[in-house]
Amino acid sequence: MKIALIGAGNVAWHLSKALKAANHQIVAVYSRSEASRKELLNQLPLAKELHSLNLTELEVELVLIAVPDAAIATVATQLQVKSGTVVAHTSGSQPMAVLESIPNASLGVFYPLQTFSKHKPVDFKEVPLLVEAQNIKTLERLRLVAQSISQKVEEVNSTARKQLHLAAVFACNFTNHLLGISRELLQEADLPEGLLQPLIQETVAKAAQHDPFTVQTGPAVRHDNNVLEEHLQALQSHPTYQLLYQQLSRSIQDKTIDARNK
Amino acid sequence: MKIALIGAGNVAWHLSKALKAANHQIVAVYSRSEASRKELLNQLPLAKELHSLNLTELEVELVLIAVPDAAIATVATQLQVKSGTVVAHTSGSQPMAVLESIPNASLGVFYPLQTFSKHKPVDFKEVPLLVEAQNIKTLERLRLVAQSISQKVEEVNSTARKQLHLAAVFACNFTNHLLGISRELLQEADLPEGLLQPLIQETVAKAAQHDPFTVQTGPAVRHDNNVLEEHLQALQSHPTYQLLYQQLSRSIQDKTIDARNK
Repeated sequence: MKIALIGAGNVAWHLSKALKAANHQIVAVYSRSEASRKELLNQLPLAKELHSLNLTELEVELVLIAVPDAAIATVATQLQVKSGTVVAHTSGSQPMAVLESIPNASLGVFYPLQTFSKHKPVDFKEVPLLVEAQNIKTLERLRLVAQSISQKVEEVNSTARKQLHLAAVFACNFTNHLLGISRELLQEADLPEGLLQPLIQETVAKAAQHDPFTVQTGPAVRHDNNVLEEHLQALQSHPTYQLLYQQLSRSIQDKTIDARNK
Repeated sequence: MKIALIGAGNVAWHLSKALKAANHQIVAVYSRSEASRKELLNQLPLAKELHSLNLTELEVELVLIAVPDAAIATVATQLQVKSGTVVAHTSGSQPMAVLESIPNASLGVFYPLQTFSKHKPVDFKEVPLLVEAQNIKTLERLRLVAQSISQKVEEVNSTARKQLHLAAVFACNFTNHLLGISRELLQEADLPEGLLQPLIQETVAKAAQHDPFTVQTGPAVRHDNNVLEEHLQALQSHPTYQLLYQQLSRSIQDKTIDARNK
């Protein structure tokens, strides 16, 4: 399929690699960041560099908008395509409707559910690709492209995708922050940074196999008030972490009552 | 080495397996729970069942106390051993000093840093074993036993171990809770439970290779107030999660300023 990419960040970078490997043609790239655009075009020698969002002269079947969430609406107000071109954004948090200002396009969403770093290779086959479209024909075209690069393609509508993004904030963004706090606490006690890795791995593996609420461990779920009190004391120089400790412990205790009363 | 085990829960169960495999002899087991004691003794046909904590008649070199944290002090006030016997508890949260009421014993700590479920096998070689002792001779004996079952033996004193335990609460107990919340949110939207697994794996792998604060992603670190507002709206029926969302987002924003000002 002939594809144009709007955006040249991490998502565009990894998507273009996977699409190329599946024999799709990236025919053009648009990005406001010159550095990213040059870097991406270096890996796509056959692609044209676009200087405007008027794509009506371009022979493409699919336009993928892989720009920061906050910029999608702006791109949509400027983008012009040939009638019937499929235009999809790659965002987890934005509804398909954010693209509605694009005239004559067949709208969709093409959301790879993974966190990308530019120079770290990604096995796209294992990345869930969530698609959505305005109509069945568009859905089938997006699904075909998705299945050519990933084994895990799901149709997920805007409402469910929004909830998925919220769930991902808890499971990934917030988890990463807790791992950062943990690392900081280890450093303060001159303990090796990697000391908790086996425990973290086991925690995540166990949580994947069970309902995490039913395998909760630690002082909060045991209502071990002595330890809870000591931990809050130990966090006195970190008032933000102290507050988090209290809220998370309280939520664990609430949830365990819920889970046991079920 | 001839070892007596006080306690018959998950830690005792897995420790006894690993110690037996390393050719130590578990000569006796004490536990107040009849069911756990019988189950553990079934796996240790040569071990004697103890009915009191007076071990002065018993030929053992090491007594391991693997009971719930809150019960260690009580065990310590009742335990009697031959002069010079090494007595160590296996708790991450309790100081060595909690054993001080035991007369004539050489005190120590023998803390396996892992979360155990009774029927799930554990590769003890990869479990960090943290040892501490009153004196060098005792430390060397505990270190020898530890090295016979684990490749990751560290000497960690009570103060540092307490901080480690606190760090583990953030990295594991709280992380598990967030994974539970995430799963609940997926279920609410009828999304497959495993959908976020690749993203979770990648998050944890990335956090192990970098300072997590420097690789933080998500709406909070981007100060994407529209998404933050939408997420809080979506959590209206979960006031506890809403509060957690706010606190964690605020902490991420605080921390990122810190990290960038470094």
